[in-house]
Amino acid sequence: MARVVQDIARADAAVIAGLAEAGVATVHEAQGRKGLLASYMRPIYAGAQVAGSAVTISAPPGDNWMLHVAIEQVKAGDILVLAPTSPCEDGYFGDLLATSARARGCLGLVVDAGVRDVRDLTAMQFPVWSKAVFAQGTVKETPGSVNVPVVCAGALVNPGDVIVADDDGVCVVARDEAAAVLDKARQRMANEEAKRARLAAGELGLDIYQMRARLAEKGLKYE
Amino acid sequence: MARVVQDIARADAAVIAGLAEAGVATVHEAQGRKGLLASYMRPIYAGAQVAGSAVTISAPPGDNWMLHVAIEQVKAGDILVLAPTSPCEDGYFGDLLATSARARGCLGLVVDAGVRDVRDLTAMQFPVWSKAVFAQGTVKETPGSVNVPVVCAGALVNPGDVIVADDDGVCVVARDEAAAVLDKARQRMANEEAKRARLAAGELGLDIYQMRARLAEKGLKYE
Amino acid sequence: MARVVQDIARADAAVIAGLAEAGVATVHEAQGRKGLLASYMRPIYAGAQVAGSAVTISAPPGDNWMLHVAIEQVKAGDILVLAPTSPCEDGYFGDLLATSARARGCLGLVVDAGVRDVRDLTAMQFPVWSKAVFAQGTVKETPGSVNVPVVCAGALVNPGDVIVADDDGVCVVARDEAAAVLDKARQRMANEEAKRARLAAGELGLDIYQMRARLAEKGLKYE
Amino acid sequence: MARVVQDIARADAAVIAGLAEAGVATVHEAQGRKGLLASYMRPIYAGAQVAGSAVTISAPPGDNWMLHVAIEQVKAGDILVLAPTSPCEDGYFGDLLATSARARGCLGLVVDAGVRDVRDLTAMQFPVWSKAVFAQGTVKETPGSVNVPVVCAGALVNPGDVIVADDDGVCVVARDEAAAVLDKARQRMANEEAKRARLAAGELGLDIYQMRARLAEKGLKYE
Amino acid sequence: MARVVQDIARADAAVIAGLAEAGVATVHEAQGRKGLLASYMRPIYAGAQVAGSAVTISAPPGDNWMLHVAIEQVKAGDILVLAPTSPCEDGYFGDLLATSARARGCLGLVVDAGVRDVRDLTAMQFPVWSKAVFAQGTVKETPGSVNVPVVCAGALVNPGDVIVADDDGVCVVARDEAAAVLDKARQRMANEEAKRARLAAGELGLDIYQMRARLAEKGLKYE
Amino acid sequence: MARVVQDIARADAAVIAGLAEAGVATVHEAQGRKGLLASYMRPIYAGAQVAGSAVTISAPPGDNWMLHVAIEQVKAGDILVLAPTSPCEDGYFGDLLATSARARGCLGLVVDAGVRDVRDLTAMQFPVWSKAVFAQGTVKETPGSVNVPVVCAGALVNPGDVIVADDDGVCVVARDEAAAVLDKARQRMANEEAKRARLAAGELGLDIYQMRARLAEKGLKYE
Repeated sequence: MARVVQDIARADAAVIAGLAEAGVATVHEAQGRKGLLASYMRPIYAGAQVAGSAVTISAPPGDNWMLHVAIEQVKAGDILVLAPTSPCEDGYFGDLLATSARARGCLGLVVDAGVRDVRDLTAMQFPVWSKAVFAQGTVKETPGSVNVPVVCAGALVNPGDVIVADDDGVCVVARDEAAAVLDKARQRMANEEAKRARLAAGELGLDIYQMRARLAEKGLKYE
Repeated sequence: MARVVQDIARADAAVIAGLAEAGVATVHEAQGRKGLLASYMRPIYAGAQVAGSAVTISAPPGDNWMLHVAIEQVKAGDILVLAPTSPCEDGYFGDLLATSARARGCLGLVVDAGVRDVRDLTAMQFPVWSKAVFAQGTVKETPGSVNVPVVCAGALVNPGDVIVADDDGVCVVARDEAAAVLDKARQRMANEEAKRARLAAGELGLDIYQMRARLAEKGLKYE
Repeated sequence: MARVVQDIARADAAVIAGLAEAGVATVHEAQGRKGLLASYMRPIYAGAQVAGSAVTISAPPGDNWMLHVAIEQVKAGDILVLAPTSPCEDGYFGDLLATSARARGCLGLVVDAGVRDVRDLTAMQFPVWSKAVFAQGTVKETPGSVNVPVVCAGALVNPGDVIVADDDGVCVVARDEAAAVLDKARQRMANEEAKRARLAAGELGLDIYQMRARLAEKGLKYE
Repeated sequence: MARVVQDIARADAAVIAGLAEAGVATVHEAQGRKGLLASYMRPIYAGAQVAGSAVTISAPPGDNWMLHVAIEQVKAGDILVLAPTSPCEDGYFGDLLATSARARGCLGLVVDAGVRDVRDLTAMQFPVWSKAVFAQGTVKETPGSVNVPVVCAGALVNPGDVIVADDDGVCVVARDEAAAVLDKARQRMANEEAKRARLAAGELGLDIYQMRARLAEKGLKYE
Repeated sequence: MARVVQDIARADAAVIAGLAEAGVATVHEAQGRKGLLASYMRPIYAGAQVAGSAVTISAPPGDNWMLHVAIEQVKAGDILVLAPTSPCEDGYFGDLLATSARARGCLGLVVDAGVRDVRDLTAMQFPVWSKAVFAQGTVKETPGSVNVPVVCAGALVNPGDVIVADDDGVCVVARDEAAAVLDKARQRMANEEAKRARLAAGELGLDIYQMRARLAEKGLKYE
Repeated sequence: MARVVQDIARADAAVIAGLAEAGVATVHEAQGRKGLLASYMRPIYAGAQVAGSAVTISAPPGDNWMLHVAIEQVKAGDILVLAPTSPCEDGYFGDLLATSARARGCLGLVVDAGVRDVRDLTAMQFPVWSKAVFAQGTVKETPGSVNVPVVCAGALVNPGDVIVADDDGVCVVARDEAAAVLDKARQRMANEEAKRARLAAGELGLDIYQMRARLAEKGLKYE
């Protein structure tokens, strides 16, 4: 069952760039509040904001062999997504693998386990979202699979799906929904821009969104 | 039972400013080692240190409607304190709400749940202490209450209590104890200043605090 | 059973300096993937990288008395390692103790509990690796022991062992293995340097490490 | 600040008995979905279902001295409620204390920490709801308080409040709301009884509660 | 996006019965060590061992409305599988819903959240595997979906997949792999039966499985 | 570094039997409140109470090969103690291994990871204390070591140490301290027996242990 799918479809590069600009919170809302990875997935440093096509890895716990296999499958603009087959926080990835991945055009890593060499990775500005920072070494004994559907931090990721990641966490967008999600994200951002100015001027959300009547109807009392 | 208490008492502004300067650890000690919120309440960025009057929010899990209601109740120098009625890490708050809250004079947010848009909030320097960073969206379906007593991250917070928050976490001071706590905090700081110089010069706490005899009495042996 | 061992052996200073330079991930690998403390041990600020001799503390939960006792035992280049006798996240250590410890030549603290005054500690650049940041105060009622073997965050630490700590976490090296571990760490670094250049040039780990045949033999299929 | 309040008011015994019969889930709903302690509070054995008046204990972490003090304050039908002042899972209570508490008429213990001797406690059928089962011993060094308001497992408990506990967990009812809550709980039980028969006969909740129209209105589609 | 898929395919009843008999550990191994739900999914009482077809529910956090909708879709032999759209431990299910579900032939519930009325559910012998036991009530405000793919406790469950659950936890088997998995499970059980007798007689696994040579080759030394 | 130490010393059988009778809480107190494993180590069924000599296993995460190796080293009255080299909750042990271990005289297993087949193990009355119940299968790829010192659930266990385990958890007693600890445990039990009768008769611990004066001296006030 260990296998590598070599030919995967990816979303349009311009759409991916648009989703990166929108960011996780907006994209998540725009696609109907779905696709978020668990909140324990945290960036190793603040400020990175990326989007890319998922090259997925299903790996045994404590075994990072498949990262080498996956890197060969990476094309420019891809993001590696690794899910262990049972819970693990070992350090699957460090600066050598980042060097290799970046040489292939990889934009970052999402790993439902640990990462190490985080100072070097920060210096390289190679972003990683992980469950843990942990130096624990791994072995290379048991193959897994590359570019198969995985459940990563509670979210289903298919190869070629768009991964959006920033300081808020990680969101996955189905490849064939990416363009539509971007449209909605842009509408949302335009709408928010107008609201932001009014809120900054001291107008209340209660009035802008006309919430008072509905709140009263639902029984809210002022004392 | 959904209600908004509009008229709450607040502590003296000068006292609040003094408590902000003292910081969480000192205030917590000065009031007899009570009032800390749980250690999982972490700031979204390092370096903020604030104090303000609590405008409290009891909200259903995954429903941030009452934040809009609460913002209308905010006066300059207040801090919003949100406790969900059952455990939740959804992202109740982001940059739009922060824009609105700041326009009313709000100094920050303490939320026993999640927050999102943390990059924007950091850029705005709007401090938030939260249980999680999570982009998960919320609904606006069920009212809660504003300015009622809440248990937030294990601590009882009454509306108008003073919230002190910094990189060490969050501490609540009862409104009517605030002045007395500030006095004790100042004594403590003065006392620490003298001790710091002696410790920096290499004198030992064992000697400064005259601990040797009591340690021996309690059975400590040197080998 | 409360006791202080005053005379402990330490590793060679040059070896310790070499281990600091190598860092946690490399040292951990060089000594056969052992000695890591649990991944929940995190630095209070990014960028510190130190090594030193362990002065160990076994302390009751919520009682930081022995830190004063331990500081007297510190020699230049030591690192304090505190393990509570039952799980605890109280703030055992703050800026006053750091001032005192630094005056004795202490390089940092590893504490399987909480720390406070983290803003001041950061300003001082006194590094701490801890399980929690928590202002909760402690008492001085019950003696513990200094320089006895402790289990800290899941790892056995003997007094005089070398502690290596950086952004990846904390690793302990047995005193009498330190020189040999450093040799292996240096070999590892030299070897990695050569590999890094090849990887950066786009060569694949699959080829550099000649993994393809073994992967095929283990059943990996390409589709 | 260590004090013992000796004279506390209690709810009516018949009301307490009624609440015990209703059980946690019903009482929690009857009082507007409030008052639950955190879900980590679990019984040490299945099948106990009790209600009683809270004798509260605020105790230092790892120090069970105040249990002895509190037992003197127990009257027949009371339940001990212990909250440590910082998080702790030490074993505050075992079979000797249970023997003493039972001799005073105590019905059980709710402890936001650990308990031990659980086999003996089970044999005695002395029910305990706790955060942990842990044999870790405690000291008797620092007084706390008895019959002061405490936050236990996230819920505010005032002395004399009614504690209801069963296999679902623990719920607190404010003393002066107890009679009204019991009335609502009884209405709820009567109503449920009628519904149970219809549901058991295969009728659907969708029809009994007339949910279909509102679901359609909210946009639910059948495919 | 709230929708109910009414017509789902199910696996063969005899196959499902066979998988129930095999149990979770065997089924999980037989299908290549995949399909397990997270280890925090625990049964509310010991001894239940079931298999059935998944009727899946994607529900908002703290909103159990869709359980009523899903029960209408249940056929005899089905198991309800509920995944909240963000993490939640509220009590979605109790004895009334169990009465209704059982009346439709439902064999049990798997819920990545909380359950309540566990004493009644145990008395009814209606098995539930859940993340928490928690009485926290839910609302009926926002529709979700029934019989869509869900990620439940880290595993992807498609409607009609076979759920196997026992004291070891919960495993999902893809509907179209169920028959093949059962074959392998039966081979495995037959094989284990023979091994069990030899092991019980004192023969060692080292010899039965001929491990000694391979261990030596991998470097194991006896001292 | 993978090695098997074949010749280990064990404590006296009568001492071990005495410690089993005393149980975890008493033994832990008798040896000065040390030696407890973390509170997350729970028995798979209630009621077992055993003591035995530790045969220790250091195993890679997700690899249970060394259990087969360790079972050959078991003598009648031993208890297996397995610690993974990085955190793991995979199911290292099930009914086949239990059958084999029991055939060699093994009394139980302590595993800082997962166990499976718990229904069968319960039926066999083969006790296991574990961090998780989880069916996740393991591999047999990488050797570890048998009868080396391990840190298991936060406690140092040397081969031949006495393991005491019951419903309260697990405690380790150093082999050469076992007889002395048993003496103290017996004194403690005798002393407790006398106290139990007085407490059962309603006498207060405050009086039996003469606590009133010391409490007053420490500042306790009655109101």
